[in-house]
Amino acid sequence: MTAASKKWVYDFTEGNASQKNLLGGKGANLAEMTNIGLPVPPGFTITCEACNAYRVEGGFPEGLLDEVADHRKHLEETMGLQIGNPKDPLLVSVRSGAPFSMPGMMDTVLNVGLNDESVEGLINQTGDPRFSWDSYRRLIQMFGKTVMNVDGDLFEEALEEAKHEKGVTNDVDLDVDDLKALVKTFKKIIKKDAKKEFPQDPTDQLHDAIEAVFGSWDNKRAQDYRRRNKIDDSLGTAVNIQTMVFGNKGEDSGTGVAFTRDPASGEKKPYGDYLENAQGEDVVAGIRHTLKLQEMGKVQPKAWKELNAHMATLEKHYKDMCDIEFTVEKGRLWLLQTRTGKRTARAEWEIAHDMVEEGLIDEPTALRDRLTADKLDEIFKPVIEAKVKTTSDPIARGLNASPGAAVGRVVFTADDAAAWAEKGERVILVRRETNPDDYHGMVASQGILTSAGGTNSHAAVVARGEGIPAVCGAAEISIDRKAKTFRAGKVTIKEGDYVTIDGTDGTVYAGELPTERSVLDAAMLGQKRAQNSGLWRAFDRFMKVADGKRSLRVRANADTPEQAKNARVRGAEGIGLCRTEHMFMGEERVEAVRKMIFAQSDEEEAEAYAELLPLQRKDFEGIFKAMDGFPVTVRLLDPPLHEFLPNHVDLEVEVALVEAGAKRMGKKKLAERKDLLSKVRELREDNPMLGLRGVRLGIVKPGLYAMQVRSIVQAAVKLKKKGLDPKPEIMIPLIATAEEFVRMRDELLPVVAEEIEKAGVDLEIPFGTMIELPRAALRAGEIAETADFFSFGTNDLTQTTYGFSRDDIGKFLAMYEELKLVGWNPFVSIDDVGVGRLMTIAVEEGRATNTHLHLGICGEHGGDPMSVTFCHKLNLDYVSCSPFRIPTARLAAGQAVLGDAQSSSK
Amino acid sequence: MTAASKKWVYDFTEGNASQKNLLGGKGANLAEMTNIGLPVPPGFTITCEACNAYRVEGGFPEGLLDEVADHRKHLEETMGLQIGNPKDPLLVSVRSGAPFSMPGMMDTVLNVGLNDESVEGLINQTGDPRFSWDSYRRLIQMFGKTVMNVDGDLFEEALEEAKHEKGVTNDVDLDVDDLKALVKTFKKIIKKDAKKEFPQDPTDQLHDAIEAVFGSWDNKRAQDYRRRNKIDDSLGTAVNIQTMVFGNKGEDSGTGVAFTRDPASGEKKPYGDYLENAQGEDVVAGIRHTLKLQEMGKVQPKAWKELNAHMATLEKHYKDMCDIEFTVEKGRLWLLQTRTGKRTARAEWEIAHDMVEEGLIDEPTALRDRLTADKLDEIFKPVIEAKVKTTSDPIARGLNASPGAAVGRVVFTADDAAAWAEKGERVILVRRETNPDDYHGMVASQGILTSAGGTNSHAAVVARGEGIPAVCGAAEISIDRKAKTFRAGKVTIKEGDYVTIDGTDGTVYAGELPTERSVLDAAMLGQKRAQNSGLWRAFDRFMKVADGKRSLRVRANADTPEQAKNARVRGAEGIGLCRTEHMFMGEERVEAVRKMIFAQSDEEEAEAYAELLPLQRKDFEGIFKAMDGFPVTVRLLDPPLHEFLPNHVDLEVEVALVEAGAKRMGKKKLAERKDLLSKVRELREDNPMLGLRGVRLGIVKPGLYAMQVRSIVQAAVKLKKKGLDPKPEIMIPLIATAEEFVRMRDELLPVVAEEIEKAGVDLEIPFGTMIELPRAALRAGEIAETADFFSFGTNDLTQTTYGFSRDDIGKFLAMYEELKLVGWNPFVSIDDVGVGRLMTIAVEEGRATNTHLHLGICGEHGGDPMSVTFCHKLNLDYVSCSPFRIPTARLAAGQAVLGDAQSSSK
Repeated sequence: MTAASKKWVYDFTEGNASQKNLLGGKGANLAEMTNIGLPVPPGFTITCEACNAYRVEGGFPEGLLDEVADHRKHLEETMGLQIGNPKDPLLVSVRSGAPFSMPGMMDTVLNVGLNDESVEGLINQTGDPRFSWDSYRRLIQMFGKTVMNVDGDLFEEALEEAKHEKGVTNDVDLDVDDLKALVKTFKKIIKKDAKKEFPQDPTDQLHDAIEAVFGSWDNKRAQDYRRRNKIDDSLGTAVNIQTMVFGNKGEDSGTGVAFTRDPASGEKKPYGDYLENAQGEDVVAGIRHTLKLQEMGKVQPKAWKELNAHMATLEKHYKDMCDIEFTVEKGRLWLLQTRTGKRTARAEWEIAHDMVEEGLIDEPTALRDRLTADKLDEIFKPVIEAKVKTTSDPIARGLNASPGAAVGRVVFTADDAAAWAEKGERVILVRRETNPDDYHGMVASQGILTSAGGTNSHAAVVARGEGIPAVCGAAEISIDRKAKTFRAGKVTIKEGDYVTIDGTDGTVYAGELPTERSVLDAAMLGQKRAQNSGLWRAFDRFMKVADGKRSLRVRANADTPEQAKNARVRGAEGIGLCRTEHMFMGEERVEAVRKMIFAQSDEEEAEAYAELLPLQRKDFEGIFKAMDGFPVTVRLLDPPLHEFLPNHVDLEVEVALVEAGAKRMGKKKLAERKDLLSKVRELREDNPMLGLRGVRLGIVKPGLYAMQVRSIVQAAVKLKKKGLDPKPEIMIPLIATAEEFVRMRDELLPVVAEEIEKAGVDLEIPFGTMIELPRAALRAGEIAETADFFSFGTNDLTQTTYGFSRDDIGKFLAMYEELKLVGWNPFVSIDDVGVGRLMTIAVEEGRATNTHLHLGICGEHGGDPMSVTFCHKLNLDYVSCSPFRIPTARLAAGQAVLGDAQSSSK
Repeated sequence: MTAASKKWVYDFTEGNASQKNLLGGKGANLAEMTNIGLPVPPGFTITCEACNAYRVEGGFPEGLLDEVADHRKHLEETMGLQIGNPKDPLLVSVRSGAPFSMPGMMDTVLNVGLNDESVEGLINQTGDPRFSWDSYRRLIQMFGKTVMNVDGDLFEEALEEAKHEKGVTNDVDLDVDDLKALVKTFKKIIKKDAKKEFPQDPTDQLHDAIEAVFGSWDNKRAQDYRRRNKIDDSLGTAVNIQTMVFGNKGEDSGTGVAFTRDPASGEKKPYGDYLENAQGEDVVAGIRHTLKLQEMGKVQPKAWKELNAHMATLEKHYKDMCDIEFTVEKGRLWLLQTRTGKRTARAEWEIAHDMVEEGLIDEPTALRDRLTADKLDEIFKPVIEAKVKTTSDPIARGLNASPGAAVGRVVFTADDAAAWAEKGERVILVRRETNPDDYHGMVASQGILTSAGGTNSHAAVVARGEGIPAVCGAAEISIDRKAKTFRAGKVTIKEGDYVTIDGTDGTVYAGELPTERSVLDAAMLGQKRAQNSGLWRAFDRFMKVADGKRSLRVRANADTPEQAKNARVRGAEGIGLCRTEHMFMGEERVEAVRKMIFAQSDEEEAEAYAELLPLQRKDFEGIFKAMDGFPVTVRLLDPPLHEFLPNHVDLEVEVALVEAGAKRMGKKKLAERKDLLSKVRELREDNPMLGLRGVRLGIVKPGLYAMQVRSIVQAAVKLKKKGLDPKPEIMIPLIATAEEFVRMRDELLPVVAEEIEKAGVDLEIPFGTMIELPRAALRAGEIAETADFFSFGTNDLTQTTYGFSRDDIGKFLAMYEELKLVGWNPFVSIDDVGVGRLMTIAVEEGRATNTHLHLGICGEHGGDPMSVTFCHKLNLDYVSCSPFRIPTARLAAGQAVLGDAQSSSK
């Protein structure tokens, strides 16, 4: 279709609610309401396509202004009035309306059609000079700010000054002369600031306002909003031109916003605000004191009754909670807009549940359309009490790395965190960054705050894994480790001072703010009172529906029995990633681990393994027991060995100080330290992420993986003999070539066979690999010839595919998101066209050579709804995520099936 | 075809030279010689397929032994003798023969058919008891060692003892009784060591020998050889069973090896050795003193004449220099084997040239089949004088990181290297590793020796780029920086001591060994005498042929005018990668660069750029001038900023020492150092390779690339005005998303336009990007929408595709090659199925959206023949490599075309 042949404009009577992409949400709903007989002021909608044509061509597309003129004429005929008629003018509003709701992000101009002449006509029409001049004043103010880019504060200041001069505080106390004077002042402001006159020609006003709305699609805050909400930039906005009705025509007029149910609690009762004798923007702006919606019944009983009837109609029609803007003009109720009402995560569940009970919607609809998997986390987390939260100022902001609120006393080292916690203190661990050595202190903390590192830094990953609230990369705070203080702006926090962090929004507060545990969390852990709550009933109901629908299994990333139990409570069907690095940490193991690292002979190395084996067997026993009956995928040791050694720089400094005589140390001790240093230097790597780790460790230290596998099998055998049903799976990390996998498998299968034979039990242990390097994805067909399963390690796969080190992206990723150089943070949601393309290759080619290949994902993405949907489409067998994200993954996996069904039924 | 229906055995009269894959090289050539009427002892060949069937089934495949029996019978009929006949036995040899020559790698057994009875028959047949018992002794010795895995030294020791007891030094001085006694002793040795008797049944001997040859395909040295020479493991070996002839039947007998031309110099005269009264293995083993081949004419004039005639026949028939094994049995000449003779890089060129002149082959054949691009480097490099080399023992061995010999005095810091060189000293820089700060010292050195780092470490890459010989990763040397010494085994080398390194084979020698410049290098640089050499004539001729054939252009990776000139002399047609990092180094720039890095305001940053711009403009002028008329692809700044700052650890130690009072420093200086330290800490990255570098720098510091682009355009404009023809191209490094490229291009194109307009010249500057991250390859279609060219940065692409940091692979890559976990070092030759697959995607999808897309490669692979062939197949426009690899790339590119033509004409 050529541009010229397109229909650019639709009358409200022409459209319907399904045409959101063409008419925008508002336009489609105005048309829908019009057509179901609700009292909507007449008008028409310019399509989103027109906006996009305008953006491409840099001006109105051919035919648009002609269509606008036609529809204007039709509207004028319908109303019996003309825009700009000096005797009896028709006034219109010009409002944006995109396919997705972007509240307050784009522009609106009201009262278009008023000028120095038609203001008199309006007086003539209404008999109300004050109202008329006030309307004109509002037009100039809004038009000046929105269309002519005049600094809005200039108008507000002039208005304040006028009130001040008159000695009044309320706009309504200004009289006609005051308003006339203000009109003059406003016009001067425009002339001075915009170097142009306020346009008197109503057609100019109309066209300029349309252009301003088109342009507002690309303003910065709208762009930011879309980026945050993953809304496509190419959609464009529609423009709605609608007959003005007035809530500011006196005491029998007013305006309001109404939700058909409570958007915070979900309770089934109307909720909103009503403002007497006012225009809509006065409510939104929140400047004047409003009545609660229920109080409207007292002042406007007829309109209130009508509104309740219309709300019922709307809910029945839309089958959802609606958000309505309305105006009462001299006792007559007009509906100006409706849309699906935004609501809290909690209200989502309660409303969905109630509506299913009421028969408005069925369960699949509720599951598919009414519940946001991405927001489920929120209702699980402890929160800062709402009232306190709104009245407290954060001292710093960072990344919302792990949700929930936490309160504690500040410590600056992991050892202090562990020691203080031991003594019963609640602590917040504050660090520049964390590393695996800090693990014991991290898990002992209530919350973690770092000044560096991104949402996938070590701190963030561990925190999410453990369900510990964390704020990361709070660049505003500056830590002085020696002095044991940190600064945030002008505030200095000392060790032992209380702080509160909110990992849900990334804020940090000084002092001890009150928090509360979430109802769902309490219910899941078995608290009866919580299980009687409406929220739990709703949650329980829909999770069962989701579980019944989904084809993806959901496993947990869990490394300890505690995490495994936690995951089971939340519905995990196994462990998809059991990391083993913590089994090489802790005081009783450090000696053996160093012996293993530094072994000069095979015998020494074997000794080290002999010491580690029984300890690790016990670790595995605990985990397999906690996951009894479900598969547990154990990843053999992955991180580079220097993670198990002291910090290189600290050691260099220490040795240098001793050698310079500035620090005392015995000769023998010094020799030991120097020896350790030379080994640390030897193991030091320029890019440890791409160095000697993963399967490369297994190749270079063949006894290492054999020891791990032996302890896994021995643990499983032991439980099996006790009548339990352990299901270990062995996973080799960081495979780049099929040959690596084959070699490891050939070395380890005999170990498995030997232990099973020795025990004489019946046990089958699958061998698989992570797919976490591009080359593994590209060679998946070959790797699948001998692998029983693949697990996509999308953290590393994203790192290598992008060449982004997640420990170092803090320096640029925020800017990349800001500038839209990435569609979104690829460590949060899978980069479908890059990383996802490699996954697709691996799935297709892996299954082509091995039809029994079992496929999962164990990167952080496994708990991200958008990524879960992608995994469902890829037809994976399971996703694995941190225990606290299990409900989210279950829900998203159920929704993905329904989304599929919907799109395939189209 | 089923196994049973396969033909496993071919008589020599049945095969021909084209059947190497089936009959092995030796078998095919024996058949060929038989069929052109040369005197070959009759026999038959068991196919490689039989070997592979044996390897798969773990035993002789069905039908094989029947066929062997049939052919044996036929051979016995032909010869009128029977194997094992106690009266008149036929003796045979059993020899391996793979499709590719693997000299000495696999097994051979001679004299099969002798036993306690048939040795008497042999005496009967030959009338020579001593010869017969010696033959039997040899069979037992060879069979014991090869087939029965007895330690060969045991036999040698027994032989020595027998001679010692008798008081003689030569085998021939042992008489019949001595040999009889030795046979007994040898049989005892076997019984003791192998716990089995030496088999008396000739059929057992034959079958065991065949089995041993099959098995020898998989022995370790054969596997290693194949890995080094990139020979497919799945080929298998054939087995040749041939009538024995004897060179040890007295003075009128003998044996020898002959090359039809000199394999070292290429001269057209036979070359080889002759050994009277001996068997072939005596020549190969090099135990006894041999005659020069020419001297054979004196002792065996008839056979010598015949040999010369047969050599002429063979060269004419094979159209190549041949390597022949022959035996004279009682005056009668037998040819036992022929194959294409191995030769030095130099002889390749000389022989190819002569054969073209002689009309034996045409130029394309010479180019395609006779010249090894991989070895071309060798004849360009200075070398240690041959005699000295063979008599000197290396003190250490490392990786042959950059070819050529270098002599100089040892220094341990780059500053010392530069200072000593300034004073006219030749120095060898010895370091654990090098980094960009060492550049000035590296280029001032004759050679570089490192104890860590791989063939793609910084030292290796810079050394190859600069043509400086280097030995890297010489783990045996241990450096004591403070004492300024290094140890290698028991040798300690002090600062100032002379060492000689040979980067061609990775050896290190103490002292000053004499070296000489290569002829080709001298000729290229214009030396007349060198240009009159035969080698130069050959080189010049075939390079012209290659240049005429090739479709790939060849550019250089060159960063300075000197390198650019060097590259032009060697035939470069432009610069494919001009790195700009060195333009941010050097004393006069360090202040400005630090100001840029630490700038607190836009003004400060702009000041820094203003200081750098004129300096860099001058740098570019020099380069564009040196490459006048050819394109120069400039890569904007790529490395992370901390590479321009002092070493982190050194600074930590320094500050700690000062603070502890162990080192003196003024208060102000200390404050500065502490400030610097805190900034170095801030910029420190965990994985700098995946951090803030490449285009990310351009995004985060927008003025940086603008400054570089401005200085490029200003330099070009200036030269243009002087009548030169500069052709800069601007390349953005490390693109991961199309949006990054678009943003940079949108920022930089106006800078280009502004400068060109200001100057009023006619200049077009293409904008392109490196494809060096997997995601860039996967999104190439999108990137190509706005990019004029792609250059594959296969170093980084290999790093990210494999997850291998080339700075850290030293700890495992050698082991990976050893264990065949990688096909070959992917940093040397492109990993065609992984990295190459990404390249293929990028080429196909890039060209699909932009038919004008210009494509090149600028990783180290650009100078590797196997990779050049791959690039030719990918249909790239050019390869770019270090100046010293340009001739190699030109040759390989020409050969790739001919290879294509050949395979497409099949």
